[in-house]
Amino acid sequence: MKYRINLLILALILTVGGFAQPAGLFQNPEPPREEGQRSVLQLAVDPIPTVRVGFIGLGNRGSGAVGRYTFIEGVEIKALCDLDADKVKRSQKTLADKGLKPADEYVGEDAWKELCRRKDIDLVYICTDWLHHTPMAVYAMQQGKHVAIEVPAATTIEECWQLVNTAEKTQRHCMMLENTCYDFFELNTLNMAQQGLFGNIVHGEGAYIHDLRSSNFQPGAYWDMWRLKFNTAHTGNPYPTHGLGPICQVMNIHRGDKMNYLVSVSSDQFGMTEYAKNKFGENSPQAKQEYKLGDMNTTIIKTEKGRTIMIQHDVTSPRPYSRLHTISGTKGFFQKYPSELIALEPNAHGFLPKAKIDSLMSRYEHPFIKEIGEFAKKVGGHGGMDFIMDYRLIYCLRNGLPLDQDVYDAAEWSCLVELSEQSVLNGGMPVKIPDFTRGDWNKLNGLKFAH
Amino acid sequence: MKYRINLLILALILTVGGFAQPAGLFQNPEPPREEGQRSVLQLAVDPIPTVRVGFIGLGNRGSGAVGRYTFIEGVEIKALCDLDADKVKRSQKTLADKGLKPADEYVGEDAWKELCRRKDIDLVYICTDWLHHTPMAVYAMQQGKHVAIEVPAATTIEECWQLVNTAEKTQRHCMMLENTCYDFFELNTLNMAQQGLFGNIVHGEGAYIHDLRSSNFQPGAYWDMWRLKFNTAHTGNPYPTHGLGPICQVMNIHRGDKMNYLVSVSSDQFGMTEYAKNKFGENSPQAKQEYKLGDMNTTIIKTEKGRTIMIQHDVTSPRPYSRLHTISGTKGFFQKYPSELIALEPNAHGFLPKAKIDSLMSRYEHPFIKEIGEFAKKVGGHGGMDFIMDYRLIYCLRNGLPLDQDVYDAAEWSCLVELSEQSVLNGGMPVKIPDFTRGDWNKLNGLKFAH
Ligand SMILES: NC(=O)c1ccc[n+]([C@@H]2O[C@H](COP(=O)([O-])OP(=O)(O)OC[C@H]3O[C@@H](n4cnc5c(N)ncnc54)[C@H](O)[C@@H]3O)[C@@H](O)[C@H]2O)c1
Ligand SMILES: NC(=O)c1ccc[n+]([C@@H]2O[C@H](COP(=O)([O-])OP(=O)(O)OC[C@H]3O[C@@H](n4cnc5c(N)ncnc54)[C@H](O)[C@@H]3O)[C@@H](O)[C@H]2O)c1
Repeated sequence: MKYRINLLILALILTVGGFAQPAGLFQNPEPPREEGQRSVLQLAVDPIPTVRVGFIGLGNRGSGAVGRYTFIEGVEIKALCDLDADKVKRSQKTLADKGLKPADEYVGEDAWKELCRRKDIDLVYICTDWLHHTPMAVYAMQQGKHVAIEVPAATTIEECWQLVNTAEKTQRHCMMLENTCYDFFELNTLNMAQQGLFGNIVHGEGAYIHDLRSSNFQPGAYWDMWRLKFNTAHTGNPYPTHGLGPICQVMNIHRGDKMNYLVSVSSDQFGMTEYAKNKFGENSPQAKQEYKLGDMNTTIIKTEKGRTIMIQHDVTSPRPYSRLHTISGTKGFFQKYPSELIALEPNAHGFLPKAKIDSLMSRYEHPFIKEIGEFAKKVGGHGGMDFIMDYRLIYCLRNGLPLDQDVYDAAEWSCLVELSEQSVLNGGMPVKIPDFTRGDWNKLNGLKFAH
Repeated sequence: MKYRINLLILALILTVGGFAQPAGLFQNPEPPREEGQRSVLQLAVDPIPTVRVGFIGLGNRGSGAVGRYTFIEGVEIKALCDLDADKVKRSQKTLADKGLKPADEYVGEDAWKELCRRKDIDLVYICTDWLHHTPMAVYAMQQGKHVAIEVPAATTIEECWQLVNTAEKTQRHCMMLENTCYDFFELNTLNMAQQGLFGNIVHGEGAYIHDLRSSNFQPGAYWDMWRLKFNTAHTGNPYPTHGLGPICQVMNIHRGDKMNYLVSVSSDQFGMTEYAKNKFGENSPQAKQEYKLGDMNTTIIKTEKGRTIMIQHDVTSPRPYSRLHTISGTKGFFQKYPSELIALEPNAHGFLPKAKIDSLMSRYEHPFIKEIGEFAKKVGGHGGMDFIMDYRLIYCLRNGLPLDQDVYDAAEWSCLVELSEQSVLNGGMPVKIPDFTRGDWNKLNGLKFAH
């Protein structure tokens, strides 16, 4: 007994002493695969010549998605679902305006389950609030459907594993709709990075810096004020994927590298209370409410190959929008915000002149942009990136190809929601990032989009 | 005995479990003051009408300092010291060219001690390599001299305490020469911040991003290749003060707020080895040498008032120079790099146009710049900031005023050298930042420069 206690003390001291690298307070272990479950790395299914789609959640984002899908060939919009009959009608009108057949309507709290159970739907496209994403996606996959989920795909580690395990059990596609991976600068610089222009990639930075105070506090802007509610209940980085996704693609995460651990620190909350006081008065319930979310969250990730990623979140400070999107390598550097800048060896002490950057952009124009960029700009949706994303998803499904983003990306990029909160609540303690591929992170030799 | 073991286990579990906030693996406790030692907060000494200066270290930086001092009234350059007689001669020539009396010369390993022992010197100005800073400053204070020390003032926590303790025992000034605090954008935005333009300050960012590969590997660029040697032996952020200093001033660190803990993560080292291979060959000793310093270090600091500071260091990546210098508050935002930008409520979704930024800059022009800015630009030294710093130091000494930067600033800003390394070596573990004022951090009501 005494021996066992001493061993326990030793183990604790070793952990605390930091001899075990990375030290990691939270180990977040990988649960073993259940029977009948197998990897969906590079999952390809039979081609689906006409992709029959059902949409769940027709708010700001879902209604836009329906609009974009009316421009894609080989798609049939079968079903529209929302809690609110008016929102369903609005999207029906979108179809009618384009001369398309009306879709079947699903209205009510659990109507989405019926939609998922239909036999004549291939893809369920989920644009609800954050907390509904995983339950809906899991259920849809269990009904044999492929799923596309808005960001973040999951809000807890438990949900991340549910997505991975369900995709592996059902062998269905589960793609998170990380549209920033399809923005023009991101795609072109990804292409440059893949062709070695920046050398070995050392460090990356991403962010979601977007002053959302007025939407968050405005009833009706989001259904049931879901965003304000989540920010009231949680700290850390609740919305990490816009910044993280494109950086992980440049770094080949789970395609040769993997994220090992993170540390995360948030400022206290100042902005929401100050805003609420000005808007609703010193003694308003909004001003007296405690909000857990710190104004600025900064997270640092270390990867297996020794790279670092810095990710930030701030939706309550008065400052211009930024996703940072910065990459530093052994031969060059770029950043997207506040303006698109590139520096390359051997003259990297200064940024390239605008004309030279433009010519690099056309020389390294990403194949997706060559193929569909101009049309995407016309359709719109964050300047075109949303449409390139939708186009690619449907293209891959119609051609029986692996998708650009798989369920492991969804889990890896979304897991920061809970992991950053774990770290923040424990004074910045390091937290292990699970390997959602369960050992397969080094099997693929870099990110390659199927074509 | 068993009881004691259980208590120990409990204590360890509580620590590891993170219930004690901030968790902090390294506690870095504050040693008690010794007898006869008292605070030097707001230290003022009798006016020194003519400040008699001795310079130690006449390399790149020291020779420039001598040049600038020939432009300052009320200064007498008494002594010049370096290991290298030629460097002393070079600075003598600077004096002669301005028609000034030759200074006494000190050459040799320990000659600086003789210089410090002179009775007719008021200020010892130290521009040697990092490892000599603290020993020289401590000895000079013990000889009754005020000291000015290049950045960083110290390279370990132990050295930080030596500076603080010696200053408190001898009641001498000990100022770190953090010139970035005197740059034009920094001073003007500090003024704006102090006048409330950015609201409550929430988050700040600073950096030293400067591609020094060619100087570091070039024999003769630095004496004894001190910088490469330090970067070979240490990870973390060895040069944090240029980025941190101006941010701490905006946040009133030890004048109403204090830094509580930090987490720090470095990328692996890629850049030095790649550079050495290209420059000296695959099999050169430089290519085979192991370098401890990671290319990119990112550190996050949490303050008592709930603010965060993000500090970076990268001297081995090909990218343009940056100190970031970013501040985000509840009413506005600014950043200095890659270009000087400001955004203010109620239109903070976009940056102000250049003309408006210029007009803010002149409306909020800092008193130091009004007083000496134009002349400083003519003298030069990083565009003028070096001269404003020197001018202010001499002004305060001549007028018996507290200096702009005190020994606590020197210790707080320099302590990151070791603290960041502690954290990096332990997988990003949080590290407590000592309170070098030993409880006085909240006695002053904001930073106020004496005049
Ligand atoms: N990728 C991007 O650029 C981007 C942009 C905006 C929003 N988003 C994401 O899209 C999602 C939706 O955001 P939004 O701004 O459209 O929010 P929203 O509140 O406008 O829309 C959510 C919709 O889901 C519906 N809904 C909720 N529960 C439902 C249920 N049980 N059954 C059917 N419908 C239900 C609501 O009625 C509402 O119409 C969020 O995850 C958000 O993060 C992504
Ligand atoms: N604030 C700034 O902007 C800035 C810019 C450059 C350098 N620095 C700092 O200035 C310091 C010096 O840097 P540098 O580039 O001039 O380096 P350097 O190597 O050119 O100069 C150091 C000098 O110290 C001398 N020296 C070393 N040991 C000595 C001793 N025992 N006695 C007398 N002289 C001795 C060397 O001979 C050398 O001339 C460093 O701390 C550096 O970080 C600051």
